[in-house]
Amino acid sequence: MFLLTPGPLTTADETRAAMAHDWGSRDRSFVELSASVCRDLAALVPGDDLACVPMQGSGTFAVEAALGSLVPRTGRVLVFHNGSYGARIAEICRRIGRAHTAIAHDELAPLSPAALAEALARDSAITHVALVHVETGAGLRNPLAELVAVCRGHGRRVIVDAMSSFGTLPLVACDAIIAASGKCLEGPPGMGFVIARRDALAAAHGNAHSLALDLADQHAALERDGQWRFTPPTHVVAALRVALDRLTAEGGPPARLARYQRNCHALVAGMTALGFAPLLAAEHQAPIIVSFRGAFPELYERVRARGFVIYPGRLAGHATFRIGCIGALPDDAIANAIAAVRDALAH
Amino acid sequence: MFLLTPGPLTTADETRAAMAHDWGSRDRSFVELSASVCRDLAALVPGDDLACVPMQGSGTFAVEAALGSLVPRTGRVLVFHNGSYGARIAEICRRIGRAHTAIAHDELAPLSPAALAEALARDSAITHVALVHVETGAGLRNPLAELVAVCRGHGRRVIVDAMSSFGTLPLVACDAIIAASGKCLEGPPGMGFVIARRDALAAAHGNAHSLALDLADQHAALERDGQWRFTPPTHVVAALRVALDRLTAEGGPPARLARYQRNCHALVAGMTALGFAPLLAAEHQAPIIVSFRGAFPELYERVRARGFVIYPGRLAGHATFRIGCIGALPDDAIANAIAAVRDALAH
Repeated sequence: MFLLTPGPLTTADETRAAMAHDWGSRDRSFVELSASVCRDLAALVPGDDLACVPMQGSGTFAVEAALGSLVPRTGRVLVFHNGSYGARIAEICRRIGRAHTAIAHDELAPLSPAALAEALARDSAITHVALVHVETGAGLRNPLAELVAVCRGHGRRVIVDAMSSFGTLPLVACDAIIAASGKCLEGPPGMGFVIARRDALAAAHGNAHSLALDLADQHAALERDGQWRFTPPTHVVAALRVALDRLTAEGGPPARLARYQRNCHALVAGMTALGFAPLLAAEHQAPIIVSFRGAFPELYERVRARGFVIYPGRLAGHATFRIGCIGALPDDAIANAIAAVRDALAH
Repeated sequence: MFLLTPGPLTTADETRAAMAHDWGSRDRSFVELSASVCRDLAALVPGDDLACVPMQGSGTFAVEAALGSLVPRTGRVLVFHNGSYGARIAEICRRIGRAHTAIAHDELAPLSPAALAEALARDSAITHVALVHVETGAGLRNPLAELVAVCRGHGRRVIVDAMSSFGTLPLVACDAIIAASGKCLEGPPGMGFVIARRDALAAAHGNAHSLALDLADQHAALERDGQWRFTPPTHVVAALRVALDRLTAEGGPPARLARYQRNCHALVAGMTALGFAPLLAAEHQAPIIVSFRGAFPELYERVRARGFVIYPGRLAGHATFRIGCIGALPDDAIANAIAAVRDALAH
């Protein structure tokens, strides 16, 4: 069964095999493993003096940890977004009591740097801007470099949810970049992480609304003796170590991006030939997951019976379904998936 | 390498083998798997109309989720404790802004039901009592049934951290019981859970200080369509399914308790013969992890070189080290561990 979904997704046999071993979470072999994973994750982001702080749980746990820890209680967050993951950031701000303004744009078009500049010029109380790099509800790629440049130009901090782009699309230096083990890194789900400057993490003490999700505390503990404060998902971390080695062996994010782009082009071409229309204009499509117009519950079951999991859409007002391009897929997976859709339609 | 630690601990090959498969987190096969795990966990606790709500992360994440979600913002928690996990509960209350009173007792003696009754009689503002069943800092077992009966008698709600007893020691009906995948259930770490009455979970809407750690939301989502709100640790859940089947095959918690008790007796007898004194009186010792007096950093390394991970102590004011009795250990593991300690001393 191949998972053509926004994640968790198909991992390599070698990656899962790393979970066949037990690790003592305070044993030095795990401390070294964990440190090497964090070091390699931080090295995937441009910027100086960065630390990667891992966080137990899903990516959303890391997003909440970043917002709660890095935005002071007196801060104000502009959630400038065009999809459900941006809306979730606004909901987190509401729940944890961080003042925020949410501006929701068209889900089918990338965020406009000019509109962001206007919003920032209008409201000098905004201290932090929260952005989502790739919105997987539609499958849309936002112009990260341009948006971050606008924030910098206005002297505001930027927190980026790079959940569905990390390890693939180019990143730019930000105040915090958030991602997780189970997406384009092709590890199993169970660990999120936040990459931020060491001085910003040190300055974040006392901000958090939570003990478990306190990023500054987690960072301090790891700096002190390499240990997580609370039990880490040891097997997931070990598998992520192998997944990172595979990323390097593949040629790093540029090579992975090229592979995902090939998958994406083959998927769009094949599905278009079967009569399905992609939701997004080609230039806005991220090579992560593609939304097609229509909703075909029977199709999912029939395609699933042929070995491929695909997902319904996630957009209000548009009937869509989604097929992912990411994961440790064999070269013929997309062609076989299209054949499965064709057979399912013929059925 | 065998992990004679408070967890994560040694799991069975069969349990880890379940992580060799990828699951779509919204695919119906995973939805069914997750539901079966929750159903079987809830069935391990006495009480009617109970639901098990899983939570991504370590056990502490589930403890914070339970306190934040089940204690209303107007509540007051009595943290009646004798060790570091109780102190952690008080710290969580402080961080998440729940009024609380912490009463810390001697770490070497079980909590006194009479002292709890006095504390409750003294303070009618207490709405909830938080207790730790087994404090693994010392390895001590608290008299859960008697303590819960006192709370009931005073009409207070009870939240129990059963992290290191769940699946082994007998439990009693409480308002919430919290545990995790990676301890006596012998699964991998990465998932906590809270077992509570359905009506209490439904009544908890709007209490939480967090989105990620909102137990009522998580419960509502699972009741609606069987799906976790945010990406679950799919491989960990699949392994826990196998671990639960192994618990049933062993004869359930009574049989597991008997095995751990045999391990504990063999450990105490063997170490005593080598000249090490257990910290606790035998009648207070939980068959989970044993603290011995002394601190021998070289010993850990030498024992580790012989294939066993043991841990330093965690008690202020007492030099101790700890050896665990739990996990999917072969029958001769404890005897071999004692032989490893003997060889290490002779070295």
